[in-house]
Order: sequence, then C-alpha cells, then structure tokens
Amino acid sequence: MKTDQYRVTPGKKVKLSDWNPDDDGGLHKEDARPLDDRLSDELFNWQERLFAEGKQSLLIILQARDAAGKDGVVKKVIGDFNPNGLHIANFKVPSAEELAHDFLWRIHAQVPKKGQVGVFNRSHYEDVLVTRVYDMIDDKTAHKRLGHIQNFEQLLADSGTRILKFYLYISPEEQKQRLQDRLDNPDKNWKFNPGDLKDREHWDGFTAAYQAAMEATSTDAAPWYVVPANHKWFRDLVIGQIILDTLKDMNPQYPVIDYDPKKIVIK
Amino acid sequence: MKTDQYRVTPGKKVKLSDWNPDDDGGLHKEDARPLDDRLSDELFNWQERLFAEGKQSLLIILQARDAAGKDGVVKKVIGDFNPNGLHIANFKVPSAEELAHDFLWRIHAQVPKKGQVGVFNRSHYEDVLVTRVYDMIDDKTAHKRLGHIQNFEQLLADSGTRILKFYLYISPEEQKQRLQDRLDNPDKNWKFNPGDLKDREHWDGFTAAYQAAMEATSTDAAPWYVVPANHKWFRDLVIGQIILDTLKDMNPQYPVIDYDPKKIVIK
Repeated sequence: MKTDQYRVTPGKKVKLSDWNPDDDGGLHKEDARPLDDRLSDELFNWQERLFAEGKQSLLIILQARDAAGKDGVVKKVIGDFNPNGLHIANFKVPSAEELAHDFLWRIHAQVPKKGQVGVFNRSHYEDVLVTRVYDMIDDKTAHKRLGHIQNFEQLLADSGTRILKFYLYISPEEQKQRLQDRLDNPDKNWKFNPGDLKDREHWDGFTAAYQAAMEATSTDAAPWYVVPANHKWFRDLVIGQIILDTLKDMNPQYPVIDYDPKKIVIK
Repeated sequence: MKTDQYRVTPGKKVKLSDWNPDDDGGLHKEDARPLDDRLSDELFNWQERLFAEGKQSLLIILQARDAAGKDGVVKKVIGDFNPNGLHIANFKVPSAEELAHDFLWRIHAQVPKKGQVGVFNRSHYEDVLVTRVYDMIDDKTAHKRLGHIQNFEQLLADSGTRILKFYLYISPEEQKQRLQDRLDNPDKNWKFNPGDLKDREHWDGFTAAYQAAMEATSTDAAPWYVVPANHKWFRDLVIGQIILDTLKDMNPQYPVIDYDPKKIVIK
C-alpha cells in the first residue's frame, strides 16, 4: 500500500481540507483483514530486530481531537508489538511540578531508549494546540515553542531516534456519532468527558492550530502524516503500513556477537 | 483450572523440589489453545475495567533463571493486555546513580500507578539472589533486605496495589537445551550471554537463595507462585489463569459518572 499521499511535505502550506477523513483507499473492510494480519506479523518481527540491535529507537506521536481513535491505535496497531520493547507515555494536563519546568521537560523524560518503540498518546504538541486555541499563550510564544520543538526533535533524530507524527483526521459528523455512542452505551460512559464538547465548539480554531503546527514542524527527520480516520480499520492499516515501512528503512540488524557459538560447551 | 497448588503458603518452609518443572497438569498442548484464547479475551476485558476504575493497580513480578521464559511470558501473556494500561520495567545491573541509593529506590520509581498493570522483568529480588550467591552481601544484610522488601510490598498493598510474584521453574536439563538452541540458531545468538554459564555452575546456590527469599516474602498481600516452566504453553496458561483470578477478585468497577448521559445534547 502506498502512503506518500498522507505525508505533510516539509515547508509546504498545510490545509487539512486537502485530505479526506472519509478516505478508505478504495478498499473494503474485508479486504483489510489479510493485509492487517500480515502487517501484525511483520511489525512484530521488525521490532524484535530493533530491540536486538539496540542502537536506534522509534518514536510514534499520536495527536487528534477527542474520539478520533488515539487509544484505538494503541490497542490495535501498537498492540501488535512485544510489550517488552515498548514505552508508552500518556500526557495529561501538566502537574504543578511539570508546570514549574519548561514545556519539554516532562516530554524529554519519556523518550524511548535505544532498541525501544516509544508511543506518545498526546505530546508536546498540546502546548501549541489547546493552549493556543484558548489564548493561554500568545502568537509570539507559540512561534517560539514551535522552534523549540523543531530543535528538540532534531536532537532526538541526531541521536538515533526516528520520529513519526500522526494526526488522526475525523470529520465533525463522525466525532458527533462517536461521542453520542459513549453517552448511549453505559460501559462507555466513563470515556465521555463533558469538557470535550467545549473543544468541539472551537473546531475551526483547532484546525488552524493543527495546520500551523504541522506546517512548522513537518521535517524529514520528523514528518507529520494526516491519516483519514473516519474508518477505524483504514486508519489502522495506514498507520501500520507507515510504521512498517519506517522500520524497514531503519533496517536494524541482529548484533555481531563477540564469541564463537561453536566453541561453547554447556555443561 | 485450579492453581492453588503453585502458591507458596505464607510462613511455610519452601523446597523447590516439592514442585515439578515438568508438570503439565495432565493437559496436552492442543487442549491449551482454546483455554488460552478464552484467557486472552478475559484478561483484556478485566484490564479495561481496572483502567476505567482507576483506583487499584496490579503488579506482576517475574523472576527466574536464564532462559526460563520471563521474556516469553511478557510476549505471550502480558501481550494480551492493552498496552495503554501497561507499565513494564526491565531491571538490569544497577547504574552508578542507582547504586548511590538504597536498593529499593529504583524499584519504587517504577511501580504501576492506579489503573495500570505493572510488570517487573527481574526486580528487587535480584538484590537477595545474585548478590547472595556471589557473596556480594553477607547473611545479615540479606535478612535485613528481606525485611525491607516485606515492608515495601506491604506499603504498596495498603495503597491499592495487588502483587503477584512468579518464579518460573525449569530443570537444569531444559535450561541446557534452551541455551544450546540460542547457540545453534544465528537469529538467537544475541540472546546468549556467555556469563549465563557461570550462574549455571551455581545452580544449587541459586536454589537455596530462591527458597530463602520466597520463604521470607510470600505473604497474603504478595504471594509467590512456583510455576512449572519446562512446557512453555503450560507456564503461560498457569500464569494467565492466576492473573485472571486475581483481577476478578479485585473486582474493579466502571466508575460512577457525575453527569446524566440522557441530558447531554451534542451540537
């Protein structure tokens, strides 16, 4: 499957409406199952190589509006990996201790170590999204932060970390349906947060903030992808494929051993 | 499936030879598959309840000799969980910074938070096992540490954390075969560490140290289980079943919501 069309070209103006949240690649859900099974196996095997090699790491950043499927991606796509080589960080509203430091302090503490796949469920991008939409920071601060984010991600890249950033793109209609589903289904009530409706009223403000953030920070070292997410199975397929292609491109190798296996006798 | 027979009774003398590493519960590998599928689904669902509730946590401690299957358990059993609610810590040889603190300092930093399932792949028990076998600490220090471990685990228990401690029990013959397999299979060479053979020469010393540690620290709050591990599928079945029974006993509940879902209108 080709995925280039979902990549945000570095340096180019970003308009979310250039993509289609309803895009299904012309596939049907039933077509996706065998592709998905193959992906699961390959992701697992390539992660083992990354872990065995112990020289590079992969950082996957998930950003999206509520109910767009961040948790679903962790469950379905990241769930294919061996948990032993995973590091997952969920960033919530910062604590007093975290706020007493620069905005990248708590983020830096959670980056994956060599050999690991790291996942950020929300990230430092919240500091130029929700904060900007609700006027908690001014434009000058936002621009400065975007510069710091670029430098920070370049530091990680220079230290052997590949970074993939996914914006899960759903339509307002699809979000409405998913939030309604959380209200209608008692077992899902706990996932509903009345505060989410406030963000929904600022739909266009978030669109503008996302566009500005992606425009400033989609680089070769840390590209953004706009992933159509109205169809959960297609969302997972696209993300799985991009992660797999990236792991193959990183091409981790089993380490060269410093002993001769044939000469060792186990008593 | 009953698992009581694998539990180390608090306060009782421990002799590993009272268990059989070759035990398969009278089952065959083919019988295990449907049991295993059912377990996977149930573990996943109960973990979601634990996560949704956000009031209790479960800490799973894995200890064993080399090649007994700690990584296998993480991959096969822990892999059934949603990675979003997992926290996995691999404890290696302590760093200089870690050694500059008490032996529980680095351990405490990695305990699961409320709602999470935590897994320790090796743990604070190394500080009364390998250190004791190689005379890095004397008996008095070992006894003191065992007391500190009891107190520490009781602190966690009193704060809503259930603790399960698994010793994966393999025979020396089975270990020999698995280590040989790592030597014979180039893709597994990286898993072989020539230093493992040294531990193998101290087989009985480790047995004594394990017995002493389990005897001192198998409590109602944090019981030890001796899991027959010569058969990988049986090992996974026993551990999966014990974790499931424990989650059911913790009985996490979906939280009571503080809004009326019927009164909310999504615009």
